[in-house]
Amino acid sequence: MTHVSPLFTLTTDFGSASSYPAQVKAVLLSAIPEARIVDITHEVPRYDVLFGALLLEAAVPWFPRESIHLAVVDPGVGTARRALVVTDLEGRRLVGPDNGLLTPFLGRGARVRALSEHGGVLPAPRSATFHGRDLFAPAAAYLARGGTAAALGAEVSDPVHLDWPAAVREGDRLLGVALTADPFGNLVTSIRAADLVGAAVLEVEVAGRPARFVRTFGEGEPGELLALVGSGGRVEVAVREGSALATLGGGRGVAVRLLLARGS
Amino acid sequence: MTHVSPLFTLTTDFGSASSYPAQVKAVLLSAIPEARIVDITHEVPRYDVLFGALLLEAAVPWFPRESIHLAVVDPGVGTARRALVVTDLEGRRLVGPDNGLLTPFLGRGARVRALSEHGGVLPAPRSATFHGRDLFAPAAAYLARGGTAAALGAEVSDPVHLDWPAAVREGDRLLGVALTADPFGNLVTSIRAADLVGAAVLEVEVAGRPARFVRTFGEGEPGELLALVGSGGRVEVAVREGSALATLGGGRGVAVRLLLARGS
Amino acid sequence: MTHVSPLFTLTTDFGSASSYPAQVKAVLLSAIPEARIVDITHEVPRYDVLFGALLLEAAVPWFPRESIHLAVVDPGVGTARRALVVTDLEGRRLVGPDNGLLTPFLGRGARVRALSEHGGVLPAPRSATFHGRDLFAPAAAYLARGGTAAALGAEVSDPVHLDWPAAVREGDRLLGVALTADPFGNLVTSIRAADLVGAAVLEVEVAGRPARFVRTFGEGEPGELLALVGSGGRVEVAVREGSALATLGGGRGVAVRLLLARGS
Repeated sequence: MTHVSPLFTLTTDFGSASSYPAQVKAVLLSAIPEARIVDITHEVPRYDVLFGALLLEAAVPWFPRESIHLAVVDPGVGTARRALVVTDLEGRRLVGPDNGLLTPFLGRGARVRALSEHGGVLPAPRSATFHGRDLFAPAAAYLARGGTAAALGAEVSDPVHLDWPAAVREGDRLLGVALTADPFGNLVTSIRAADLVGAAVLEVEVAGRPARFVRTFGEGEPGELLALVGSGGRVEVAVREGSALATLGGGRGVAVRLLLARGS
Repeated sequence: MTHVSPLFTLTTDFGSASSYPAQVKAVLLSAIPEARIVDITHEVPRYDVLFGALLLEAAVPWFPRESIHLAVVDPGVGTARRALVVTDLEGRRLVGPDNGLLTPFLGRGARVRALSEHGGVLPAPRSATFHGRDLFAPAAAYLARGGTAAALGAEVSDPVHLDWPAAVREGDRLLGVALTADPFGNLVTSIRAADLVGAAVLEVEVAGRPARFVRTFGEGEPGELLALVGSGGRVEVAVREGSALATLGGGRGVAVRLLLARGS
Repeated sequence: MTHVSPLFTLTTDFGSASSYPAQVKAVLLSAIPEARIVDITHEVPRYDVLFGALLLEAAVPWFPRESIHLAVVDPGVGTARRALVVTDLEGRRLVGPDNGLLTPFLGRGARVRALSEHGGVLPAPRSATFHGRDLFAPAAAYLARGGTAAALGAEVSDPVHLDWPAAVREGDRLLGVALTADPFGNLVTSIRAADLVGAAVLEVEVAGRPARFVRTFGEGEPGELLALVGSGGRVEVAVREGSALATLGGGRGVAVRLLLARGS
C-alpha cells in the first residue's frame, strides 16, 4: 500500500493578496515536506465567522476523513479567546479559534480541546497577532506527524457555538432566512434538505415575492426567481443565468417561506 | 523511472471566494490521493464561455500531454446539455460541458464523447447543480486511474462549437477584434501570429486610433498604444506601463486593423 | 531519509484571473514533475515593485532554505533590464527581474548573477513579453535539477536596489511611514522591530492622530487606532475589528511618529 502524505485544508479571511496563507503553508511544509495542502478559500469576508462556518460545513465533508482542517477567521486573535482542536464524530480533525467558526463540527460526540499555548508540546507562539502561522499550523503539523489531540491541550466542555440559524416550522409553513451568497449570487438559506423530507413544496416566497421550487436551475426560465436544494444540502434561492443577490437587492437576512404538503 | 502521479488542471467560473473549487479537489484527492492539481483560474467571468475557451487555448498546451483538464463554465448545468470527454489530436484529455468551452480542442482528429450520466461506469451524480464535483471530477479521476474515454460514453459528432472569432483579410488589410482583456489591461485579439507569417506590419489602427507594431512592450513609450504578438500567439493591444483597456475605454469588440506588406 | 522534491514559490502581479501563473507552473511541472509549488500571491498591485519586495521580505524567510523563489513584478519586461539569480547569505535562491524587486535579499554576502538569455545553458526565451514563463521558470527549474547559479550567468556587482524606506531617528523620536496595507487594512510601516530594541514606546502619532502602542490587537478597544509590532517584524498601524486604511483614508505614505524612552 502506498504511503499517503498528510492532507491539510486552509480556510481563512486572510485574502489572496496577502502573503499570510503562504506563510502558513511554509510552516506546514517546513514541518512536513510531503504535505498536501488545499485552499478551501482565503476570501471569507473579513471577520465573518458565520460565513466561514458555512463554508467549512459545505466543503469539509468532501475531504478524506484523515484530513486536517485549519480554519482562521479570528477577530479575537491576541485576546484571551481560546484556540481549539476538535475531533468530530467522524474522526475529522479541525484546528481554529474558539469563536464559533467550528460550530458545524461541535455536535454530539465531538472531542474539543483548548490548545496549550505555553508549556505544552508546542513552542510558544512567535507572535500574538498571527496564530494561524504561529499556533494553529504547528498544532496541525503536530497532529499530522502522529501526535495526539490530547497532548495539545485539555478537554473543554463549553466551546463557543454560533447561534446556528435553523428553519422554523409554523404549521404547514417552513420559515427560513438567507445566510450567505455564493459568487453566482445564489443565496444559501437556513433551510436544509432534511427539513423537506417527506414533504412536497407547494409554494415558495422569497422577500415577499413568489418563487418556483425546482430540482435544477435548468428548469427555470432565464431571469425567473427559483428555489432548489443546492449542492451543499441547503435550500438555495437562485435566478437562472442571473443573480438572486442582485435581483433581490440583498443577501443575508432575506426571508424565505415554504408552504409544504406533508405526505402520509 | 519515477512513477509520476496524475496531473489535473481546473478552469472554472466558481470564484475563489467559494468553496466549490475545493470540493472538486476533494473529490479528485479522495479518488487519487497522490493527484497533482493546478488551478488555471477560477475567475473566468461568470458564464463567459468564450473567455474560458480562450484561457484554455492559452494555458493547456503548456502542460504535459498526459494532464487531464477539467473545465466548468456552465450556465446550462442541470439542463439537457451534454457533458463531454475530449481527446484531442495531441492526446490531451479534457472534461467539461458541451457548450463550446472546449472549442479549441475540437479540431480535426479529436475524439469527442458524451458522458453517460446514468448507467455508465460512474455513479449517478449526487446533485443536478454541481456537475464539476459530481460528474466531471469523477470522470477525470476515472481517466487518471487508467479508465478509457470510450467507457465513459459514446462518441458524438456534433459537439457545440463556439463561433470562433478569426481575422478577416481584405486585400492588404487584416481585420480583427479584441476578444478579452488580461489583468494588465492588454487586449487579446482574434488575429493570430500565424496570420502574419511572411508579412510585415506597416500600420495598425485600434478603435480608429493609430498604434505602433512592436516586438515587445519595452519598445513603446510609456502611455503609447502598441500592438504586438503576445505570449499566447495572438496579436495583443497594449499600453506600456498602462492599460489598453482603460485607454480605449473598453475591451471585447474593439476593432483592430493591420495594414500588411507581403513578402516576395 | 526521504527524498524531498523541489519547492518553488511564486510571487507575481499576474492576477489570479489570468492563466499566466498556471503557464509558469506548467513549465515547472514539465521540467520537474514532482515539483511542489506554493503561490505567495499573484495579486501584487500591478507593477508595484515595492509592494512585491515587502511581500517577499515577509514570506520568504518562512520557507525551507532550499526553496527556489520566483518573483515577477516586471514593468520593464522586454526592455534591456537584466534578469537576476540571487543566492543570499542564507543560501536562499531567488530568480526575478533586476528592478529592485529582490532588494531584501541583496545584502552583504549575496551572490548576484545576470541570467544569460542567449547562448547560455537555457534555450532562448520563446517570447519577449513573458519572461516569467520563458526565462525565469526555466532558470528556476535548472537550479532545482542541480544546476549551478554560476552556469546561468556572470556575477554582477550593481543590481538595482530599491530606495528602501527606513525609520529616521530624531532625538527621542522615530519617524516612519506606511509602506503597504494588508487585506485587513493594517498598515505596514518602515519602522522595524529592531529599531525599538532597548526602548519603550511612550507615544505614537499616526497622520497627526494619537495612537496607542500595544502588544496585540486584542488590547485595543474596537475602533481604536493602534500601533504594534506585527507578525512580519515591522511596526503596523491597526484598528481593532476595523481598518486603519479606511479610518485614516489612505495607506502608503501616512506618517508614523514614535516617542521613545531609551533604557540605560
